[in-house]
Amino acid sequence: MKFKKRVSKITLFLILLVVTISCNTTSVNTNNTDSGSHPKLILTKQGVNNIRKHLGNVPIFDKSLAETKAEIDAEIELGIQVPIPKDLSGGYTHERHKKNFVVLQKAGVLYQILNDEKYANYVKDMLFAYAKLYPTLPVHPQTRSYARGKLFWQCLNDSNWLVYSAQAYDCIYDWLSKEERDILENDLFIPFAKFISEGNPQFFNRVHNHSTWGNVAVGMIALVMDNDELLENALNGLKTDNLTTGMRDNDGGFIKVEGLRLGFFGNLDEPFSPDGYYNEGPYYQRYAMYPFLIFAEALHNVKPELKIFEYKDGVLLKGVDALLNLSDKNGNFFPLNDGQKGMSYYTAALVSAVDIAYHYGGNNPELLSIAKKQDRVVLDDTGLAIALGIKEGLEKPFEKKSINLSDGKNGDEGGVGILRNKDLELVYKYASHGSSHGHYDKLSFSLYENGNEVIQDYGLARFVNIEQKGGGNYLKENKTWAKQTIAHNTLSVNGENHFQGKFAIGSKHHSELYFYDDKNPNVQIISATEVNAYPGTEMLRTFALIKDEDFQRPFTIDLFKIKSNSKNQYDLPYYYLGHIMKTNFDYTAFNQLNALGKKNGYQHLWKEASGKPSDNNTVFSWKNNNLFYTLTSTATNSDELILGRIGAHDPNYNLRKDPTLIIRRKNTQNTTFASVIESHGSYNPVTELALNAYSSISDLKIVIDTDNYTAVSITTTKGTSKILIISNKDNSKDKNHTLKINNKNYTWVGSYYYN
Amino acid sequence: MKFKKRVSKITLFLILLVVTISCNTTSVNTNNTDSGSHPKLILTKQGVNNIRKHLGNVPIFDKSLAETKAEIDAEIELGIQVPIPKDLSGGYTHERHKKNFVVLQKAGVLYQILNDEKYANYVKDMLFAYAKLYPTLPVHPQTRSYARGKLFWQCLNDSNWLVYSAQAYDCIYDWLSKEERDILENDLFIPFAKFISEGNPQFFNRVHNHSTWGNVAVGMIALVMDNDELLENALNGLKTDNLTTGMRDNDGGFIKVEGLRLGFFGNLDEPFSPDGYYNEGPYYQRYAMYPFLIFAEALHNVKPELKIFEYKDGVLLKGVDALLNLSDKNGNFFPLNDGQKGMSYYTAALVSAVDIAYHYGGNNPELLSIAKKQDRVVLDDTGLAIALGIKEGLEKPFEKKSINLSDGKNGDEGGVGILRNKDLELVYKYASHGSSHGHYDKLSFSLYENGNEVIQDYGLARFVNIEQKGGGNYLKENKTWAKQTIAHNTLSVNGENHFQGKFAIGSKHHSELYFYDDKNPNVQIISATEVNAYPGTEMLRTFALIKDEDFQRPFTIDLFKIKSNSKNQYDLPYYYLGHIMKTNFDYTAFNQLNALGKKNGYQHLWKEASGKPSDNNTVFSWKNNNLFYTLTSTATNSDELILGRIGAHDPNYNLRKDPTLIIRRKNTQNTTFASVIESHGSYNPVTELALNAYSSISDLKIVIDTDNYTAVSITTTKGTSKILIISNKDNSKDKNHTLKINNKNYTWVGSYYYN
Repeated sequence: MKFKKRVSKITLFLILLVVTISCNTTSVNTNNTDSGSHPKLILTKQGVNNIRKHLGNVPIFDKSLAETKAEIDAEIELGIQVPIPKDLSGGYTHERHKKNFVVLQKAGVLYQILNDEKYANYVKDMLFAYAKLYPTLPVHPQTRSYARGKLFWQCLNDSNWLVYSAQAYDCIYDWLSKEERDILENDLFIPFAKFISEGNPQFFNRVHNHSTWGNVAVGMIALVMDNDELLENALNGLKTDNLTTGMRDNDGGFIKVEGLRLGFFGNLDEPFSPDGYYNEGPYYQRYAMYPFLIFAEALHNVKPELKIFEYKDGVLLKGVDALLNLSDKNGNFFPLNDGQKGMSYYTAALVSAVDIAYHYGGNNPELLSIAKKQDRVVLDDTGLAIALGIKEGLEKPFEKKSINLSDGKNGDEGGVGILRNKDLELVYKYASHGSSHGHYDKLSFSLYENGNEVIQDYGLARFVNIEQKGGGNYLKENKTWAKQTIAHNTLSVNGENHFQGKFAIGSKHHSELYFYDDKNPNVQIISATEVNAYPGTEMLRTFALIKDEDFQRPFTIDLFKIKSNSKNQYDLPYYYLGHIMKTNFDYTAFNQLNALGKKNGYQHLWKEASGKPSDNNTVFSWKNNNLFYTLTSTATNSDELILGRIGAHDPNYNLRKDPTLIIRRKNTQNTTFASVIESHGSYNPVTELALNAYSSISDLKIVIDTDNYTAVSITTTKGTSKILIISNKDNSKDKNHTLKINNKNYTWVGSYYYN
Repeated sequence: MKFKKRVSKITLFLILLVVTISCNTTSVNTNNTDSGSHPKLILTKQGVNNIRKHLGNVPIFDKSLAETKAEIDAEIELGIQVPIPKDLSGGYTHERHKKNFVVLQKAGVLYQILNDEKYANYVKDMLFAYAKLYPTLPVHPQTRSYARGKLFWQCLNDSNWLVYSAQAYDCIYDWLSKEERDILENDLFIPFAKFISEGNPQFFNRVHNHSTWGNVAVGMIALVMDNDELLENALNGLKTDNLTTGMRDNDGGFIKVEGLRLGFFGNLDEPFSPDGYYNEGPYYQRYAMYPFLIFAEALHNVKPELKIFEYKDGVLLKGVDALLNLSDKNGNFFPLNDGQKGMSYYTAALVSAVDIAYHYGGNNPELLSIAKKQDRVVLDDTGLAIALGIKEGLEKPFEKKSINLSDGKNGDEGGVGILRNKDLELVYKYASHGSSHGHYDKLSFSLYENGNEVIQDYGLARFVNIEQKGGGNYLKENKTWAKQTIAHNTLSVNGENHFQGKFAIGSKHHSELYFYDDKNPNVQIISATEVNAYPGTEMLRTFALIKDEDFQRPFTIDLFKIKSNSKNQYDLPYYYLGHIMKTNFDYTAFNQLNALGKKNGYQHLWKEASGKPSDNNTVFSWKNNNLFYTLTSTATNSDELILGRIGAHDPNYNLRKDPTLIIRRKNTQNTTFASVIESHGSYNPVTELALNAYSSISDLKIVIDTDNYTAVSITTTKGTSKILIISNKDNSKDKNHTLKINNKNYTWVGSYYYN
């Protein structure tokens, strides 16, 4: 109402004048596009011409363009909303600003491709709204973060905003007048970039996925503005930061670590192994891939002399391949460390990752099949390349095989191995801690069939962006449960965590690969050691995924050898999913339930039932997704078999009430847990036929277990016999071994023998 | 070895002679096919000619034929196995004999359609093997059944065998010599039919799905052999049976009930309502449909004068329609009473049901779309009709709408109503007991969205045919849990079961429809009463499924009015599936778990947490399949809110550990539970966006609750207001009502008002 009153004749005249000038300016610049210097960041002048040439003739690109246009047209219809920041993630102002940067970037692209000023005007208007708001903003009112932003509660999200908005700005740069650019740069972009860098060194000057976003945000806008000072900070970090060693962030991660390279290069060097594995795990690698790759693309376009895609032997492109391999049959990432289940290569970050990797990585035709599943492309040169490749029918299936990915800057800090055979996938984690998102689970595993979890890794305790659940942030159970050793399919000794559950200790150590061998298509095998998790106790765990004609489907051998200088209680859980079918041991199901322990995650486990082995083997069968599974494990007299369930001391129902079987071996010094996990048979609820519902194993036996060798024999129900022998002390590939077991001589070369 | 020694030259000569004769016979009969009297039962001479004419030109038929041929050729390759009966279901001899009858029937059909004697010989050889074995058999060694069979542990399975084998016999009848037929009939078929009828009147002379199979088995073979005596027994039951009133079967069902018509007609009369609802529920209706319809087809072919498809106003064909409507969006049957989840209209029994209903029920084109999904047809006239219909592109979508199905022989014993709107389906059970497979849950409901359970009915406690779980039979938890009232989404009073959990009482009563109205596409509503479950306590429960523009998706109003002559404790559970998001009340999660009670199913519920309402409304939100749900319920001071979980006192892990919310109202006489269940928003684990994650209701209030009227008002977060008024005493459709609530007059015609 007030506004209306003020619209006097004079004001109207002034407005019309401005519009006229602005139109003139616009028209000059538009006609002048070819002679300008932008876009140059992600879209390029040449690229845009090329795209326009193919439009209407590249189905997947055309479809993505149409979808983007529909989305942005609807947003333009709704009008611009730039609210005063107030909420945590999930809340209105957070979600709106988040949406705005995505919309900005897309509108910029539409302006370039469609050459329709509607989009340029929209970007301009929104950026000017931000330029008006930003100088008035204090730090965000929510105080939860160690590095509060201005638009968002944390600098991380502010950085997200700038990474996208820089692209939008680049798209309309030439179309704006010098005066307009000056306003945007001086009131918005430069102070914005400085706030998230100089203003927040504890956020910016670090090796961490947060910092990557910060570095890239500053770097992107620097490239657009041709600002060398900001670019230098982005690439190599702030020269001075006044940070002190020992500072921690909200998650308990160290902020300052002496001797690390910082900035974008630092964040490329440190967390990526030479194999492209990112130390926090695939969920955060997925999150980090976008800034890494989009900035790499920008650097490639603006600073080709840096040869960024060749940096560290092409680690960025290797990272895309590693990440795709770190997904199950359905494309969902394995939830190592803090990972939310359901995140997959269908996420937007992976669309750009795949497009970029294809375009700058030698047009690998297997990537086209992933892009085809994603069913959309980025609206730039890389997406066009994909679209043309698909149109020409060049795609080949992306074949996921067994793979071993080293961890650590130099690839010598353990790793993650994935054994694959037919529909089965076994994920073995023997990596470094994984920074602040790491969990305390060395030598842990998870098992998948047909993309479904059979033995699960819990993942994180968080409902990302679901406000009702702790604001969508990490829940306290992430620390008290999800990060704890007992929450994982690995050994807990005396109820304690690996590395006492202390980040300062855990982040100093890593497991070691003992051997990995995928040469025999029927025997995929990996073995690793951990000697620091429990000082005085050495652990060697070997997994073999074996296809054998006496078994319906590939089966897993799990050999966990423990050598200790003291007697301990060993807990080895299997977080199976599904319904128990049968056990060969008797157990008592309790009529009153108590937690299994008081701390280290044990307080979150209900002890539902408990029993003792009835035989030399413990046999445990369950059904999941209408397939049958059987765990057969060698038993000792001191074993207690515990059927547990997650969910005790969970006052807000933050945890999933999933089951576990824990093999507890008491008062034992050196020992080996030898187990086989079979997948067999099926149940059809329509025909009601249960096929092959029983294990094919009649006996499992450790036939030798010395310092030098461990061997396990499997007798099948067909009466046939198999043996797996591991050399415990020599992992060289060409070493000759001879071993007599039960009067039979075994001779082989290399780390293992199976027959 | 013995056999080999005996093959002397003379024997060889004799064998050759027999073969020669047999070949001659065969050849005579084959040439003579057109002049014989068979097949006539399911296949007919005319039908076979018609099929042969179309072969190669009816895709879905050709495909089914090819699949059947491949299956039977493989069986012929394996050779005939007719083992001495020994095992329970799941065991070898059981599964083999079960497979044999299926194979026999199919081989017979292949002989007719393909005119290849290989199949006739196979059928003959197998039948002769049975003719040799059968006279030697005592009753089956397993003693579990109230009516032990000879081939199987129960007469039920023996009857299955005969239903199929009779068809096989019919197919090769003309091809066999008179002598061969005499052997088969005298040594096998007649004694077989007499054993399951006269030999087991407690099985045969009953109204029960078991007896239906028995009647049909005897009837089918009677039609093939033209045996009037057996046919009469099949159609109308045994004249004398020496059974006494009060006898019970294994499940506790009554064997003898005075005054019932028996035999096939009796089994058609009693359990089917005029709407085609079968009183045991859809899972058993599916099981019974095959014998009902296959025998109807046979009677239609051989005794057309009976006009069987017109019997009881076409109840058999109505039954198929009812059954299809008793399935969710994915075709899975609602697990009312004893029903195993996952059974669907993809089962073989429904393939023949759909084919028969199409062919004999006026070629309803909607059935073609179901047949197309089934992707196979029966290899007879009915399947050919389907195949031709599909080929000609006649199919229309099978549109499932809201439907109310009466229960009881005359349709006056309550019923089952299904409210449908968009992707939501609400199933309301207010039926009769459902014979021996009935559960004690009057006025219970379950809710589905997109074919997924939102508020579940537990179904049965059994793993059908999974031998490890109690031999694949009913588990004791079926009785102690699944049948109990508290296991269902309905009211338990003072911790007791409906009808004291006594079959003798429960089977005398049924709930009553109060009204059902699906005329307004935006308001689907059903209301029913139960006055006998708890003598002295009257219950009226109304469900409305409403599409309203102020809500994202259709929502459910649940009005449960209770009038009692005493103060009671009322427990109203909601077996939600999914993860709790938020409650508006505080609760204490216990650190030690105990069962909620000692009996009537309460002993199987863990009491995980408990709280009190914090407000006039109890608000409970959860997430399931990435959709959000909120239950909003009017609260009173005497309410206790219990978060429970199934699984206590479950020593063999026979139960699923699923959650529940129980609203417990203590020390209350008359009361009304008014609740709204909303489906809203979504979560996407790839974009990590939570949309519309909150309820649209700001207040729910009972604004009037008298003997005559109950009204509930809903205030939305948009500030709009809705009201639902139910007339509690007059359900006539044309009655005029006027009611003043809060000084506003409401006037309407009929049982309810919504606006």
